[in-house]
Amino acid sequence: MKKNIWLLCALLSISLQAQENKDKAFINRIYDTALSDSNSYDWLNHLSNQIGGRLSGSIQAEQAVDYTFKVIEDLNLDKVWKQDITVPKWVRGTPEFAYMELSPGATTNIPILALGGSVATPSLGIKAELIEVSSLDELKALGKKAVSGKIVFFNRPMDPKMINTFSAYSKAVDQRSKGAAEAAKYGAVGVIVRSMNLRLDDFPHTGGMSYGDLPDSMKIPAAAVSTNHANFLSTTLALNPSLKFYFKQNCRTLADVPSHNVIGEIKGSEFPEEIIVVGGHLDSWDVGDGAHDDGAGCVQSMAVLEILKKLNYNPKRTIRVVMFMNEENGLRGGTAYASRANELGERHIFALESDSGGFTPRGFSFDATTENMTQIMEWKTYFEPYMAHSFTKGGSGADIGPLKKEGIVLAGLRPDSQRYFDHHHAATDTFDAVNKRELDMGAAAMTALVYLFDRYGIETTEIK
Amino acid sequence: MKKNIWLLCALLSISLQAQENKDKAFINRIYDTALSDSNSYDWLNHLSNQIGGRLSGSIQAEQAVDYTFKVIEDLNLDKVWKQDITVPKWVRGTPEFAYMELSPGATTNIPILALGGSVATPSLGIKAELIEVSSLDELKALGKKAVSGKIVFFNRPMDPKMINTFSAYSKAVDQRSKGAAEAAKYGAVGVIVRSMNLRLDDFPHTGGMSYGDLPDSMKIPAAAVSTNHANFLSTTLALNPSLKFYFKQNCRTLADVPSHNVIGEIKGSEFPEEIIVVGGHLDSWDVGDGAHDDGAGCVQSMAVLEILKKLNYNPKRTIRVVMFMNEENGLRGGTAYASRANELGERHIFALESDSGGFTPRGFSFDATTENMTQIMEWKTYFEPYMAHSFTKGGSGADIGPLKKEGIVLAGLRPDSQRYFDHHHAATDTFDAVNKRELDMGAAAMTALVYLFDRYGIETTEIK
Repeated sequence: MKKNIWLLCALLSISLQAQENKDKAFINRIYDTALSDSNSYDWLNHLSNQIGGRLSGSIQAEQAVDYTFKVIEDLNLDKVWKQDITVPKWVRGTPEFAYMELSPGATTNIPILALGGSVATPSLGIKAELIEVSSLDELKALGKKAVSGKIVFFNRPMDPKMINTFSAYSKAVDQRSKGAAEAAKYGAVGVIVRSMNLRLDDFPHTGGMSYGDLPDSMKIPAAAVSTNHANFLSTTLALNPSLKFYFKQNCRTLADVPSHNVIGEIKGSEFPEEIIVVGGHLDSWDVGDGAHDDGAGCVQSMAVLEILKKLNYNPKRTIRVVMFMNEENGLRGGTAYASRANELGERHIFALESDSGGFTPRGFSFDATTENMTQIMEWKTYFEPYMAHSFTKGGSGADIGPLKKEGIVLAGLRPDSQRYFDHHHAATDTFDAVNKRELDMGAAAMTALVYLFDRYGIETTEIK
Repeated sequence: MKKNIWLLCALLSISLQAQENKDKAFINRIYDTALSDSNSYDWLNHLSNQIGGRLSGSIQAEQAVDYTFKVIEDLNLDKVWKQDITVPKWVRGTPEFAYMELSPGATTNIPILALGGSVATPSLGIKAELIEVSSLDELKALGKKAVSGKIVFFNRPMDPKMINTFSAYSKAVDQRSKGAAEAAKYGAVGVIVRSMNLRLDDFPHTGGMSYGDLPDSMKIPAAAVSTNHANFLSTTLALNPSLKFYFKQNCRTLADVPSHNVIGEIKGSEFPEEIIVVGGHLDSWDVGDGAHDDGAGCVQSMAVLEILKKLNYNPKRTIRVVMFMNEENGLRGGTAYASRANELGERHIFALESDSGGFTPRGFSFDATTENMTQIMEWKTYFEPYMAHSFTKGGSGADIGPLKKEGIVLAGLRPDSQRYFDHHHAATDTFDAVNKRELDMGAAAMTALVYLFDRYGIETTEIK
């Protein structure tokens, strides 16, 4: 009897080792295919250079819908469709204009970009004194008397000491997202924000902002200045506290318009009702070409299915690619996708988003239970040969966030973050800033992870 | 007694933990300083944009000597000096010219770059049929009859499937380094080599080559074509096997000239006779600005001493920065440095080179004994928070190679390698391709490693 148990254990161990070797070999083939035979870089070239910036509600956004629909149609998937949604439509209008005025007539032009969602200035623009603050707290401490009638200049830089630049972004972005809403409460007439960029350069970076529950009558316009111009303004302001800043922008929010998520899937052969999603977002800001944010994530997600198809992989579970619309200023695509999944009673077990740039992948972060993390951490070794084995517990992606519930693991691809904010939401987010190999390695890492979730599912207490 | 041993162990463990925490905290300060208060990016700007390409023996190379000497003089080190050496002087001459000819008069110009060390063509150029091969073995198999009188076109691409691009480089570079010497033996009249570049673009990449012991009379000229042009030539050649290739270059090797290594040091306070070296190479190819190769390594090495100085660190051992001259086409600087160290009976315990580009550091590779590797691997955890903890046994750097002997650990900084060969030895090796944070993080990792070697030395059987 004892002998039999030993034999069983030995056989089991041999079989586990054999499966492990099979997985290793398959992941190796995934990388080989991604690095030598993927079309994702060409797709990104098209999205960036033939379509360009794809703000929700724009013609370009719909061109991107049609283009990616066509791309995944050609992948010969089991099903490809568009999900109808409506999206907000904010438009920049004619180019913004701004200057700093030391004395009447002595002006220096300053490049600005209206923040996404901002109201326009009056048609003649706004001219007022600047008051520089480094935080919402400092604004509060200054109070109505100091702020009223002025343009508030938020100038706290992203912290260069943080190794992960997304952490530095999180700690600075309140100035952009809430600055105008807060400054308005103290009677400010406008807001200028230092760009969310660690590099010193001349490019203003736009990005979403919200007025919260502020009534329309109290909304004030907000725009970003480049890091170099923020430093220049700050230095000049210290010497000339009464200098004036003028800016003019005629952006506005129009009525919602129809748009789409783009979806395709390979049906699972054993557990078709268990769905695995991989995706990025199709929309981008209107400046730059949305190459890193998030053209890269879209083409990598399509590449996951392309690679599995090229390898004639027959998945156990249903593997779905979703190009979400409207991540940047509304999250309507992600919200609609999750709510439709709920309506249909679909069971998603894993969702992976790539929305941190097309740089060398360092690993993934997982929004998962401790139980699932234990399972996932065992897969780390598969990613070591590719140096993509930084597995952490943490966030995933904005678009897949609404899918969160019991019984699903969410994950985000985590590429090297050092260069990301040089390009994020700026005219510098262009195709030439993406390296083909880095992009392909991201797609390979994503495919490998999707493969493992497809093979092994997720350990979970049975849910209905 | 037993109680005393326990007490001793407890105290020892507390003290070890305290020291570990102290090291962690100091390394954290190193990173903070590198990321917020280092001048290395500005130094690189000067080397790249005020001096530019710095081929050994050129005026630019000596300008780089003077500039870096001045920079480290200003760091207030204990000693700064130049080491006299002589270097080979190869010059490119007037720009190369080449075309492909389908029939008389039907020509298409092809950008080429003479390989470093190549002889000139005759003054009227060379025109001959092309014969494409993918390896030195294939050349050998073809033999004299097929090759004689022709221009050999080496066109084996770097393997895109290799994750580490330096491995792919090693497997392809024999075509460049030995192609001409081998082809000459079979009567070829010239050699054209596909650039060592994984990216498809229009830039030819130069680089060193050797004729081995070939007599002057047998030397044939060699040049590189871009990856795009290599593909174009190959395709056209398949359709038109009798097409001709013309090229003309008037590069030549002049007499050796004097040059310098640039050296500075902080004297050790406890073991001044134990020397730690950190360095890169000052020379570069003449095309591009030598920003990644190896301006980055030079400024990072200078930054190591800058950072330690800023932190008022008083080293136990002597810490020396060396900017080596002539890595690209002779290694005279590295050789001379080691031989002078031998003459003086200096004892080097650790040498670290950065010569793999200024990209995000992934870790280090060590040329070390098993005993030393055990010691070094214990330090890995210090680098984990900075994601620079890939520690492997392997090569170090060309310039510090000659220092190898018993009792010294050699190491190379290993940055992310994906983009490196887009820039290596080409017009694209410019300052804008370097990201400040990535550069600074490399300097920080190097400083942290130098700090640990300074604190703890290396475990070694006593040598005389």
